[in-house]
Amino acid sequence: MLPVVVVHGGAGHCPKEMSESAKKGVCAAARAGYEVLRGGGSSMDAVVEAVTQLENNSLFNAGCGSVLNIKGDVEMDALVMDGQTLASGAVAAVRNIANPVQLSRLVMDKTSHVCLTAGGAQQFAESMGVPLVQQESLITLRPPACAGGRTWHPRPTQGKMGTVGAVAVDVHGNVASATSTGGILNKMEGRVGDTPCVGCGGYADNRVGAVSTTGYGEAIMKVTLARLILFHMEQGQSAEAASDSALAYMKSRVEGLGGVVTVDPQGHWAARFSSTQMCWAAAQEDVLHYGVYAGEHLTENITTPQ
Amino acid sequence: MLPVVVVHGGAGHCPKEMSESAKKGVCAAARAGYEVLRGGGSSMDAVVEAVTQLENNSLFNAGCGSVLNIKGDVEMDALVMDGQTLASGAVAAVRNIANPVQLSRLVMDKTSHVCLTAGGAQQFAESMGVPLVQQESLITLRPPACAGGRTWHPRPTQGKMGTVGAVAVDVHGNVASATSTGGILNKMEGRVGDTPCVGCGGYADNRVGAVSTTGYGEAIMKVTLARLILFHMEQGQSAEAASDSALAYMKSRVEGLGGVVTVDPQGHWAARFSSTQMCWAAAQEDVLHYGVYAGEHLTENITTPQ
Repeated sequence: MLPVVVVHGGAGHCPKEMSESAKKGVCAAARAGYEVLRGGGSSMDAVVEAVTQLENNSLFNAGCGSVLNIKGDVEMDALVMDGQTLASGAVAAVRNIANPVQLSRLVMDKTSHVCLTAGGAQQFAESMGVPLVQQESLITLRPPACAGGRTWHPRPTQGKMGTVGAVAVDVHGNVASATSTGGILNKMEGRVGDTPCVGCGGYADNRVGAVSTTGYGEAIMKVTLARLILFHMEQGQSAEAASDSALAYMKSRVEGLGGVVTVDPQGHWAARFSSTQMCWAAAQEDVLHYGVYAGEHLTENITTPQ
Repeated sequence: MLPVVVVHGGAGHCPKEMSESAKKGVCAAARAGYEVLRGGGSSMDAVVEAVTQLENNSLFNAGCGSVLNIKGDVEMDALVMDGQTLASGAVAAVRNIANPVQLSRLVMDKTSHVCLTAGGAQQFAESMGVPLVQQESLITLRPPACAGGRTWHPRPTQGKMGTVGAVAVDVHGNVASATSTGGILNKMEGRVGDTPCVGCGGYADNRVGAVSTTGYGEAIMKVTLARLILFHMEQGQSAEAASDSALAYMKSRVEGLGGVVTVDPQGHWAARFSSTQMCWAAAQEDVLHYGVYAGEHLTENITTPQ
């Protein structure tokens, strides 16, 4: 069953013309994470690699491709959590960084803190030698678009579609979670969503499992969605049942839709959503699983050339 | 049993010469919150009033009296949560605001977001007509001290001692939580602790109860302390037992010390801590309860002149 990695490219409405590209994007990210795991890398290495790939893909609302706030600026949130130590690292409302997930890992590894925000996060990046990038290089809503000129026009109603995330279990049974986002289109300056909030955007605990969430951030925070799923698993539910029951609770209690990827330390995994769609992919035992629509579950051999 | 309000002035080591003043501070805050409740105010009104009193008291590490970050600046975090709607509001790493708890409530009431950080939070404050204050007016570590020239010299080891918070249940059975802090002494610029993180610094749910936490923020985040206590209560534990078991878990799992104030919707309350001390006070049925040291539980009639 081990290793395994599961990624998501965001819950919400994925325009039909984008769905094939989105599938390719999540599949490539899952393959990249799986490659790390097969090479003996840790689950933390794998989730950071998978999320980095998604941040670098301008289709998704994280890193390059992030939506703009009300002032037309990119401010990004990210979180990583290590199930072995319960340590986590996060950045909130950070600007001019290509890969917030990597900066989150540096916060976890190189500071005594969990979360750095805004200018402080940027100063920390500079002190770590992380290059600052021009904001224009992160924006794909208007020309010049990055990554070969692809453009992406999210609708105001589409909320947080495109938040990306990954969970993994390595061969040692260690679990990890990573999540990254550009947030909500037209958000206020300085808005921090659920993503960098431990227990909301993600959680990882070797004794139970790991979760990364996507959806309407303010609803996710109301129910601390990631931690809620793991509480259900502590009570004996499977990764899939726990994910479904927590998503159903979020819908009934606070009318919030979203999606999650979940693993347990044995390698059982789930990619579940209450939204119309969620791009997801999983890699396990040399098989790639993926889908976008409810009930869609495609597979291919992982040695198949991409 | 209703209404009830319970406040804390922070877990950690309280120097003996400060303990009487700290007791007076938490008692005054509990009285203020209780007065709101007796006047028919909501639990949210009460916790914001109680925490405002503590922010204005330079003894405590929140608002005026906040510790300084590594650059000698004050950056504050705060969170409020409403148990009726599960709505919350927070500010993170905000500067030049006298009462972050009040600004958090404005974020909850006046925006569609949960958390605003740094400059964005400050801009929002200005847009709401909240006056910006000079940083010097918040600093009591060095002259000129505010509030009559009292000075306060926290030791580097003392961590987050002085984070303040309150929970309450009003006559309608609605619960609320509020927490506010200057964070950890010598923290990096932009460091965000557990306080503004929903489920960590606080949580409130009318179906279960409300919690406000204090202690080593990074440990509190590892175990999502506030939400953990309420999960225990959902499993049938009392407010006191749930608080104790979650604090014991935090100590054994991640070697973290802290304290909490907890209520259930029926008005049962607890003020528990694994740290050496925690200043706390509760007001219920016209009796004021308070203490600082382990096992200390003093009472006085709430009509007694202060």
